[in-house]
Amino acid sequence: MVTIKDIAKEAGVSVMTVSYALNETGRIGTATRQHVKDVAQRMGYQPNAVARGLQRRRMDAIGVVFGVVPETLVFDGYYGRVLDGICRACGERKQKAVIFQEPSWDALYDNLSILADGYCDGLILITPLKDCPLIEPLLRKRIPFAIVGDSREDPRVIRLDIDNFGASVSIMRHLGELGHRRIAFLQGDLWYLSSEQRHQGYLQGLRELEARYNPALDIPCGYDPAGGYQIAQNLMALPVDERPTAIFCSNDSIAYGVLACCRDLGVRVPEDLSVIGIDDKLQSAGTTPPLTTLRQPYHDIGRRAVEKIVERVSHPDRHATPVGTLELLPAELILRDSVGPAPRLALR
Amino acid sequence: MVTIKDIAKEAGVSVMTVSYALNETGRIGTATRQHVKDVAQRMGYQPNAVARGLQRRRMDAIGVVFGVVPETLVFDGYYGRVLDGICRACGERKQKAVIFQEPSWDALYDNLSILADGYCDGLILITPLKDCPLIEPLLRKRIPFAIVGDSREDPRVIRLDIDNFGASVSIMRHLGELGHRRIAFLQGDLWYLSSEQRHQGYLQGLRELEARYNPALDIPCGYDPAGGYQIAQNLMALPVDERPTAIFCSNDSIAYGVLACCRDLGVRVPEDLSVIGIDDKLQSAGTTPPLTTLRQPYHDIGRRAVEKIVERVSHPDRHATPVGTLELLPAELILRDSVGPAPRLALR
Repeated sequence: MVTIKDIAKEAGVSVMTVSYALNETGRIGTATRQHVKDVAQRMGYQPNAVARGLQRRRMDAIGVVFGVVPETLVFDGYYGRVLDGICRACGERKQKAVIFQEPSWDALYDNLSILADGYCDGLILITPLKDCPLIEPLLRKRIPFAIVGDSREDPRVIRLDIDNFGASVSIMRHLGELGHRRIAFLQGDLWYLSSEQRHQGYLQGLRELEARYNPALDIPCGYDPAGGYQIAQNLMALPVDERPTAIFCSNDSIAYGVLACCRDLGVRVPEDLSVIGIDDKLQSAGTTPPLTTLRQPYHDIGRRAVEKIVERVSHPDRHATPVGTLELLPAELILRDSVGPAPRLALR
Repeated sequence: MVTIKDIAKEAGVSVMTVSYALNETGRIGTATRQHVKDVAQRMGYQPNAVARGLQRRRMDAIGVVFGVVPETLVFDGYYGRVLDGICRACGERKQKAVIFQEPSWDALYDNLSILADGYCDGLILITPLKDCPLIEPLLRKRIPFAIVGDSREDPRVIRLDIDNFGASVSIMRHLGELGHRRIAFLQGDLWYLSSEQRHQGYLQGLRELEARYNPALDIPCGYDPAGGYQIAQNLMALPVDERPTAIFCSNDSIAYGVLACCRDLGVRVPEDLSVIGIDDKLQSAGTTPPLTTLRQPYHDIGRRAVEKIVERVSHPDRHATPVGTLELLPAELILRDSVGPAPRLALR
């Protein structure tokens, strides 16, 4: 980058003279001023906009914070597509999207000073843990921020998510309408609030269906295909009248493992067993059979998060006591081929 | 963010006193200094690191520049996965990745002042056009930058790509070994240098195979499945002894269209027709049949670009006349099921 030192050297004048000339201050001759300006223009000089941003306390930049380094952001589906929505919305609003990625939320906490150093006007935290250590310090420092994929009961925080509880209930109703009553639930990682809410929705769904709660069918798994595979194997080894007729997976990754297990065991989906997930990740249309699932409004979640931050940052009193909002965006049930009527023999 | 004004108010002293206390300057009493420091700490004050970065002329940030807004970065495969590699490498080096996305390179040129305002220490341009208008201004302004997916003959520029010409030649040899001689080539968008190089590799491959060049089989298409579909339809309507036995698609997107057309026409792949692409995009393992293709080293390309920029920026004389480098990273032929021996009848 060309500095005023470079210009001074090239123009054969002092740095002070360059500063006077470019800032239209100081007492220097018109010819000198013009000469300096010509040199500056020829050299492609431009004043440092970061300095200007510092002055007006706006960087036109939003930090996107990941407390996890997945094998790939893209293949994960959720992270990549929310990021997509954020990037688009940022581009349209002349905002820069600044990516922060650390392998854990604790590691981010250790780098809090970098997150909160004024480089970004605001932050978007992607699926923070329930006990994410960043929330309180960010509130205390009055850094505008939003969290996505989390709808915790904290009125100070801007939150964007789907209605996870409602999503689970609607999945249970869908299965119920097809005659399923022995429905297994494979839980996600419970350090996410959303996993807990999905689990609560499962329990509520069972109550609505007046189906007996069977702890043997309500199984901790984690968002991992290998876990789904293993648990499906155990479930399929149960006597036929105890076996579930449907497996509700807390996300699509788990369902991939369940489907792989069914293929290996010769269990027909959906004739013998229905399988349903949540997310509609990239691969879900291409599984065998294609996975019935609930689609997250990835792009809208990302876009709304950007809009909320821009709104907050543009507010004249943006460092006032934070006022949070909760937005639950609609998720859509995507009917594919992995869910069918409960097998007749299995009906009680 | 807490400012020194806030601290002054809270501590009941002047802004000047706060400044003295925090900067260990000025003549103020020890008790006052300690009081101010206590208040500052309690309020979570931290000095603005952007101001500090401005001072040392390092922002620890790398801009990632897209001159296109694809329907989604993620589904595209190339953009998303290179970005993945960049984000990971940035995270490991405590660099921020700053995303700039405009619908065209001209739009980016119009916003050149934002790209070059000192917010980022360097830039990575993702697959610039042959006549990308940013190259010369960035060189003139001595902004450290790299281009990926482009290996133009410009020794001033840091370039990272695969050897597109060599990749095409190796694909042609692979087809040649399986007996193919009537090989159609579906060209990509020729405003990318890489597309041109792939085309040159096709022509070289034909020469090596001593196969006749047939202009009717060397067809402009663009990176678009619909184009691939249409052209495949035309090719399959040729008399059987003029029909290609293999279609070499300049990227996987084109190949998806070709495969869809074959499915609709009942053309068996690879028995009647072999189809091969370049990229190994996300969907390529899941097509029917799975696509044989050349895998781009996405992550390595992204990582090396970050490393080159960090290296350049760390150089004591980083605003010296730019010295470019060219790195061609190895691509890997992924053998799946869409390529087979040439049909016997078709052999000349």
